[in-house]
Amino acid sequence: MSLSDRTLADVGEFRLIEEITDGLTLGPDVMIGPGDDGAVLAVDSPLVCSVDLLVENVHFKTDWSPAESVGRKAVAVNVADIEAMGATPTGLVVGFAAPGETPESWALDFARGLRAECETAGVSLVGGDVTRAAQIAISVTVLGSLDGRPPVRRDGARAGDLVAFRGRLGWAGAGWAVLGRGFRSPRAAVQAYQVPEPPYGQGRIAALAGASAMIDVSDGLLADLGHIARRSGVAIDLHRESFPIAEPLQAVAAATGSDPLGFVLTGGEDHALVATFAADSVPADWTVVGTVSAVGEGGPTITVDGSAWEGEQGWDHYA
Amino acid sequence: MSLSDRTLADVGEFRLIEEITDGLTLGPDVMIGPGDDGAVLAVDSPLVCSVDLLVENVHFKTDWSPAESVGRKAVAVNVADIEAMGATPTGLVVGFAAPGETPESWALDFARGLRAECETAGVSLVGGDVTRAAQIAISVTVLGSLDGRPPVRRDGARAGDLVAFRGRLGWAGAGWAVLGRGFRSPRAAVQAYQVPEPPYGQGRIAALAGASAMIDVSDGLLADLGHIARRSGVAIDLHRESFPIAEPLQAVAAATGSDPLGFVLTGGEDHALVATFAADSVPADWTVVGTVSAVGEGGPTITVDGSAWEGEQGWDHYA
Repeated sequence: MSLSDRTLADVGEFRLIEEITDGLTLGPDVMIGPGDDGAVLAVDSPLVCSVDLLVENVHFKTDWSPAESVGRKAVAVNVADIEAMGATPTGLVVGFAAPGETPESWALDFARGLRAECETAGVSLVGGDVTRAAQIAISVTVLGSLDGRPPVRRDGARAGDLVAFRGRLGWAGAGWAVLGRGFRSPRAAVQAYQVPEPPYGQGRIAALAGASAMIDVSDGLLADLGHIARRSGVAIDLHRESFPIAEPLQAVAAATGSDPLGFVLTGGEDHALVATFAADSVPADWTVVGTVSAVGEGGPTITVDGSAWEGEQGWDHYA
Repeated sequence: MSLSDRTLADVGEFRLIEEITDGLTLGPDVMIGPGDDGAVLAVDSPLVCSVDLLVENVHFKTDWSPAESVGRKAVAVNVADIEAMGATPTGLVVGFAAPGETPESWALDFARGLRAECETAGVSLVGGDVTRAAQIAISVTVLGSLDGRPPVRRDGARAGDLVAFRGRLGWAGAGWAVLGRGFRSPRAAVQAYQVPEPPYGQGRIAALAGASAMIDVSDGLLADLGHIARRSGVAIDLHRESFPIAEPLQAVAAATGSDPLGFVLTGGEDHALVATFAADSVPADWTVVGTVSAVGEGGPTITVDGSAWEGEQGWDHYA
C-alpha cells in the first residue's frame, strides 16, 4: 500500500488528530489549544457563540468541491454568523465525522483548507473531535468577541432605516446552477459556490456604524431579510435597480435562460452581510438596496419595487 | 396522516427548531438564546470550550437507546470534558442532523432528553443548528467557567501523587456487553450504557482540592490514564484490590464468563473523573486506586499491581 492510498481506517483517530493539529498557529488569547479535554481561552464578556453543520450531499458534494474548499467553507459560513452579530471571531472548535474508507489525503486537504480559512478570518482553531460516520459531517462552533458592544440582533430594524449589504449576492447560487447542469464554468461562480467569501471584519464595522439589525445571507436575501422583517415588525422594500449584477451572474443567467436578479434575491450560501441603518450612517462600501417602513395591513413583508417577488423563496433543510 | 406519523420532512427545519426551543429555561448569564445568528453570553475569563460528536451506529443505536437517552448522553459526555478541566459548565450549543424520514417524535424525545440533562448538569442550551443527513449525527459544544482558577491539565501528575476517581467505572461497558448479546438486563448496566452519569460538580471540587492532572474516562480507565502518564512523563500503578466491583458488573461478568475488573479497567463511556492528587489532598468520596511514580526504563507506563494488563486497551474510532 502506498502512502497516498491510506484511508482513515488505516491511519486511526489519534494519528489523524496529530496530523490536523501539528504546527497549528494559535492566537495570543489561546491558553490551551488542542490535546486536552477542552481548550482554554482568554475571553471578554459578552461572548458570541454559534454552531453550523455541513453534511456531505446536503451542503457539499465531494465531486463538486475539493476537500480544501470544504474545509474553507466550513469556517467561512460559521464566522459569518459571528460577524452578523457585530462581533469579531476569536476561537473555533471543529467536529469531523467521516467513513473509515475516506482517503487520508481528503481529510488532510480538508484540514489544510480549515486552517487556511481560520488564518484569513483571524480565528484560532483551538480544539475538535474526530469520529467515524457513514457520510462526512462537519460541525464548526465559533466564539466571538463584541469588545463590550451590544450585539446587533435581528429585531432592531425601524421604519425609515435603509437596507444595505456588503459581500456577494447570487454568486454561489449561480455556481450551484452551473454545477447542477454538469458544467464547470464560469469559474468565478463555481468557486463562489465552493468557498463563500464573507466580508470579514465588516460585521464589526456595521456595528460601530450603528446597524439596527443584521443577518448573514445563508438561505437567500429575501428569506433572510424576512427574518429581520418578522422579528422587527417592519416592511422592507428592495429596489431592483440598486443591485449590481456581476458579470458571472449575467453569463449564467444568459446560459440558463433565467433572470439574473433571481440569483441575487434568492440564491443562498454567499454569506454576505445585510443590515439596516439610519439613513445617515451606512458604512462606506456598503450598497444601499432598500428601505424599511412601518408594516401595512399584510403584516411584515418583503417586496421588490413594491410587489411580492414571484420566484422561489429560499431554503429549508428538510424541504 | 396522524400527528404521531409525522416525519422531520413533514415538519420542516424551522418548525422543528421552534419545538425544540419553545419555553426553554435560560440561565441569568444568557443574554441572547436561540433564534439569532449567534447566542450571546456573559462569561468570565478564562473560558473552557469542548466539542464532541455522537453518530448513530457508532456512539449509539436507536434500537439500544431511546431517543431521550441519546439526548441526555449527548449533554453528559460533553459536560464531562468541561468538568475534567476543573471547570463549571455554563452554555451549550447543539448541532442536530437526521434523515428526513426520522419520526418527529424521535427528534422531540431527543430534545426533551437534551433539555432535561442540561438542567441536571446546570448548563443552558443557548443555540443550535438543524439539518438533513443520511444518519443521525449530533454535535454538542459546551462552554465552561474556571472562576479564575487555572485549568487542570493532563500533564501535571507528579511522582508521589495518588490516583483517585469519582463516578462509575465499567458500568457502561457491561451494559454494552449485555446489549451486544441481545439481552436487556441487568437494567442498571443497560441504563448506564444508555445514559452515563458523570459526577457533576466534582471537577470543580477536584480542582479546588489541588488536582495535579485530570481526565474524564471516555475510552477506558487504562487508555485515559495512559494520556495522563504520557503527557506528564510518569508511571502509574493501579491496585486491583482498591476497585469496588458493583453488583451489576459482577452479574454481567458471571453471565459472560469474563473478569469484572476488565469492565472497570477498559470499559469506556461512563465518564467518571480520574485525577491525581498530592497524598494529603484527595477530596472526600473520591476512591484512591493507584500511585504515581517516576518513569522507569520502559517510559511512561500503566500497570496493575506492577504488571501490564493483558486485556484490550481502549477505543479508537477508526479501529
